[in-house]
Order: sequence, then C-alpha cells, then structure tokens
Amino acid sequence: MSEFRKDPLRGTWVITENQRIRQPREFLVDRQHPTLTICPFCPGQESKTPQEVFALRPGTTKANEPGWRVRVVPNKFPILRIEGDLNRQTSGLNQSMRGIGAHEVIIETADHQRSLAQLDIAEITDVLIAYRARLLDLRQDSRFHYLQIFKNHGIEAGAPLPHSHSQLMAVPIMPPVIHSELNMCRNHFLTSGQCLICDLLAQETADGRRVVSNDGTFLILAPYASSSPFELRLFPLRHNHDFALQNDQELADCAKALQDMLRRLYRLLEDPPYNFILHTTPPIHSRVSKPGYWETIVSDYHWHIELVPRLSQTAGFEWGSGFFINPLPPEDAARFLRATDPNLSF
Amino acid sequence: MSEFRKDPLRGTWVITENQRIRQPREFLVDRQHPTLTICPFCPGQESKTPQEVFALRPGTTKANEPGWRVRVVPNKFPILRIEGDLNRQTSGLNQSMRGIGAHEVIIETADHQRSLAQLDIAEITDVLIAYRARLLDLRQDSRFHYLQIFKNHGIEAGAPLPHSHSQLMAVPIMPPVIHSELNMCRNHFLTSGQCLICDLLAQETADGRRVVSNDGTFLILAPYASSSPFELRLFPLRHNHDFALQNDQELADCAKALQDMLRRLYRLLEDPPYNFILHTTPPIHSRVSKPGYWETIVSDYHWHIELVPRLSQTAGFEWGSGFFINPLPPEDAARFLRATDPNLSF
Repeated sequence: MSEFRKDPLRGTWVITENQRIRQPREFLVDRQHPTLTICPFCPGQESKTPQEVFALRPGTTKANEPGWRVRVVPNKFPILRIEGDLNRQTSGLNQSMRGIGAHEVIIETADHQRSLAQLDIAEITDVLIAYRARLLDLRQDSRFHYLQIFKNHGIEAGAPLPHSHSQLMAVPIMPPVIHSELNMCRNHFLTSGQCLICDLLAQETADGRRVVSNDGTFLILAPYASSSPFELRLFPLRHNHDFALQNDQELADCAKALQDMLRRLYRLLEDPPYNFILHTTPPIHSRVSKPGYWETIVSDYHWHIELVPRLSQTAGFEWGSGFFINPLPPEDAARFLRATDPNLSF
Repeated sequence: MSEFRKDPLRGTWVITENQRIRQPREFLVDRQHPTLTICPFCPGQESKTPQEVFALRPGTTKANEPGWRVRVVPNKFPILRIEGDLNRQTSGLNQSMRGIGAHEVIIETADHQRSLAQLDIAEITDVLIAYRARLLDLRQDSRFHYLQIFKNHGIEAGAPLPHSHSQLMAVPIMPPVIHSELNMCRNHFLTSGQCLICDLLAQETADGRRVVSNDGTFLILAPYASSSPFELRLFPLRHNHDFALQNDQELADCAKALQDMLRRLYRLLEDPPYNFILHTTPPIHSRVSKPGYWETIVSDYHWHIELVPRLSQTAGFEWGSGFFINPLPPEDAARFLRATDPNLSF
C-alpha cells in the first residue's frame, strides 16, 4: 500500500505510491520543440539582449560581441527590477512591496544546438563559474535576501526559448522553501551539533537504496520523500554551506556530477523537461546575526542542487493540501538511474 | 512595475505582474476531450465501481442501481486505504506511516454530458448535500486529521474521466496549507477577537476592486495575492467555521453562488480546466482541545471554496522558492469576470 513519508530536509510529507511496479516509459513526455527565426541568445545577436554583466571570453574579444563561452545578461523582460527601494505598504490586511530584485539570464553556451546535458565537463564548469561570480556580486546588495539560481529545460518546464540557459532571481524576501530548509537544518544543528545534511548523506550512503551515483566527491540521491518521479538531489560530500565559496576544482567536480545526473535522465527518459534549483546559503545580511552566529551559519547548512523532471501534473489535492502524490518510489527511480549508462556521446 | 503581495489568509507572498494589460483570450487553454467506450460513472454501470457509501435517490430505487441523482463511492484505485492503523515508523532521519485514509468519488450527476457549471441550482445543491453527508460521517474516525474535498475539471487539471465528479480524501496528517490558514486565523482572533476572514470580507467589500459578485449571502473574490490568473475564492458572508453545519437553505445559497462563479469562468475562458478545494474546519479531535477552546474553534475559522483555473504552468522559480508569479492582477481578473454574464443557457 502507499505510505506517507516525511522529508527530513523540508519537514513536509508526501504520499509515495507503491501499489504496482512502474516502468520509466510510463513517464515519457511528448516534448514540443519551438523553432525560432532569430535566437537572441546566439553569438552575433548580442545587441538583442541588455548589456552583459558577466562573460567568460578570451581577452581578445570585446564585451557584447561574439567570442564568449558563457554570457550573463539582465533579462530583457524582467519580473523584478533592480532600481528603487522596496516601498513596503500596508492597506488594512493587505501588504505589498515593489517588485525590486534582479532577474538575469545565464546563457550557458554559444552553441544553439546543445543542451546542458550535452556540454562537456569544462563547459559545464564555466556555467558554474558564472553562477559563482553572480552570487558573489549580487550578495553585496543588502536589499536582496536570497539569490535563486534555477534552470528550466524545455517548454513543458517553463523555458520558451530553446537555447540552453539558466536564470538568477534576487528577491527581497526569504523564499519560504529556503526558510523551511534553513530552519530544519538549524534546529538539527542546535540539538545535535551536526549538519543535518551531512547526517543525511551518511545515512543514505550506508542504506544505498536511493543512491544513484557516488563518485567520492558528489552524491546523487533520489530523496526519500520525493514529491514526483525521478526527483533528484546532488550534494557535495564535503560539508560546505556556500556554493559561492567553492574553488575551481570543486566546481569542476560538481560539473562532472551534474553532467552525470543530466545524462542519466536524458538517456532513461529521452531528454525530459526539467527544472533544477541551486540551494545555497542566503547572503549573510539576511540571516540572524548575533555574536558567535557566524560559526553556526557555516556549520548548519550544506548547499546542494535539486532537480525535478516535469513528467506529471499536480491537481486539486496537491494544491489544496500541500501534500504531493508520487507514483514512483524513489528506490525504483534510483535503481533505474543506476542501471543507466551516463557515458553517452552526442 | 510588478509587486510582491502578501496573502493575509496564508501568509505567503506572490509576485503580481502588471507591466502590460492582458486580455482573457491570452489565457485560453487548448482542451483535450477524452472519449470513453464505457463510462464507469454512468447509470447502469454501477457494478464497475465499489459499493456506494451515499446516494441521493428516490426511495423506490435500490442502492447500486440506476435512479440516483448524486452517488458517492470509494475510489476503485484509492491513493489511501481505509483499513489498518498508521504504523508510524522512524528509520534514522526518515519518518513514515502507512497510507491510511479514505478516498471517495462524488459522482455529481447521472448525466454524462453536463459538467458542474451546466447543472442547475437544485442539482448543485445535491452535490453539496453529498459533501456535507460525507464530512459528517468521516469526521467520526479519529485517525483522520483532515477531510479534503476537491474537484479536478478537465484532463489538464488532473481529471482523466470526463463524467463530472469531485473527490474526498481523508488524511491522517493536517495538510500544511490548512495548517497555515488555521494558524493565521487563530493568531488574528487571539490578538483582535475577530475572525480574520470576516474582517477580510468587510475590507474587500468596501474596496470593491476584487469583488466578482456579491448576492448578499455569498461573496466571490479574486484574492489580493492571487497566485495565478483568475484564481477565485467563494465565501459565505455570514460567519461559519464548518461547512458541514450549513443547513439546506444555506447549501442552496452556496450552490447558486458556485454556479455563478463556474458559469462566469465557463463563458469568459471557454470552459477552462480548473481545480476547486473546500476549506473547512478540521474534525474537532485534530485541533487543540483545552477548556474554553470550543468557542475559539467556532469563532476563528470561516469555511470557503478556493478555485484555481489551470491556465499556466509553474517552473523552477516557483518550485524552488515557493513564490508564485501571477501575470494577471486580480483587479483585472475581477473586472473581466464582473462584466461576464453568468446567465447562460445550456
């Protein structure tokens, strides 16, 4: 029969169905592939985006001209805008503030044809270097309480433009999902003196049933309380609260594991639409700062990447309750993914 | 520019976009319409479902035979099962319990062709009478901490079967969405001595910009912090914490307002897919019971129906943060819906 499972990192419950064994082919999605006459993210089209705020390019090339490997630009149609103050207002029971923030696009490659899963490790490392650079820059703005880096892959996952890219949104309020995680981690640390995620990785490694891959530096897990089929989390095995403090070698190791994760999904589920989200420590000004708290902040959180393939839809029950129903136990998802060879050639 | 808005009932923030005026036609969805050879919810097919647990039918007809107007049956493929105990288990950091609960289907009409919006007020009243009967019955089971009634309309909203129906799921854990609402309402009551929702209705009625309809007994609002386009909430104007305590006349008034809401959406958005969810007080055994708390329980919550048309998709930002981005301000949604005549004939 199905069971309720509690996510030790979020505190939320999901319903894991296990009435019958399901096969990966049951989760394949009919993908739409948009065609563009002119892609604004391609080399030569730099004038179609706002001016770049970061790029990896040879010193012989100029900003906003071709030659870049990764390019970060403000979103041309930003949800949040960087100029102005928050202007918090209360009108009776209603509260608002202006949509202040940053909304940037990380163009992951100059190659229009290849998706992130198809890039090589050096190319993916470049993408992670761009993430790090933007985090280090934007965390200096004290209006921003969190810097959310995420990727939508495929129209079905919210990416109307096919050229491979991720996004960064800096927001003036701590997102509730991050807030819950930070609270769970802090409570665990205060009661046990240990990092919750380090403890979780030790437990899951010893158990093994939900491990997709472990290369000695990064661990790919199908979470115990996965909310949907083939949900995955990628963790550095070495404790670190802050993605932006990773050195180049650590980013290269992360790129290798991220490529492994993406290629297994690509092969098993025929290039599924997905979202991934970087979970890392908020800027220091948005956390409680008391004497002695610095040690807690570096010790109680552990950055990671969460990936959610978009294979099924939610309905009224999930919306109304906040409980997700997952038709594929993560033990099965991990087993299918372990058996998939990530060494594909493109 | 866009703004962050806080939902006074949930405490969550959404981002309301208002960079350009959008028209309802931008939100139309290409609907799929499944065809079935035999519909298990049609009269004459009663043997294809489990035995009915409730029906409205003339005394001259027999259970599990044709003649019913509304019929409630256990789901043939239930997510949760009613037999057994919870068997809570902890394995290291992971917690689970068995998938105990109830999962029922409310077949809203014997007519395969008409959807809920197309039923007349007496027929919709019958559906609400069935909801009330099932709530009153299932709340006697002390294993269930919440009874969630919801409707999925259309494949795009999670309803693979086209014959009009809603569902009930009894769950052994308080859903986090309901938990948040109850907490917000209780805090407001403890500090002000007032029902948060009564205060909200007074404020929104006086403001008027987000009111879709007000017939003197029920109010239809586009919520200030709507998370998606054309999200609506239907409230009884008279305070009542418990849907199951409504009398027949009150249910008939509710049916009239629900029909109004569904028909406006049907006409404006060409029969959109949607989910609706009944929010009502949990069974008394699942709330804090201290001497004197009964008065609080009847005073601090106010039942309502939440409706979410499924017109857009969420992506990595929403998933990773918990913030929703709504491209249509609720003031515009309310204006479009006010201008829509609900008196359509079918």
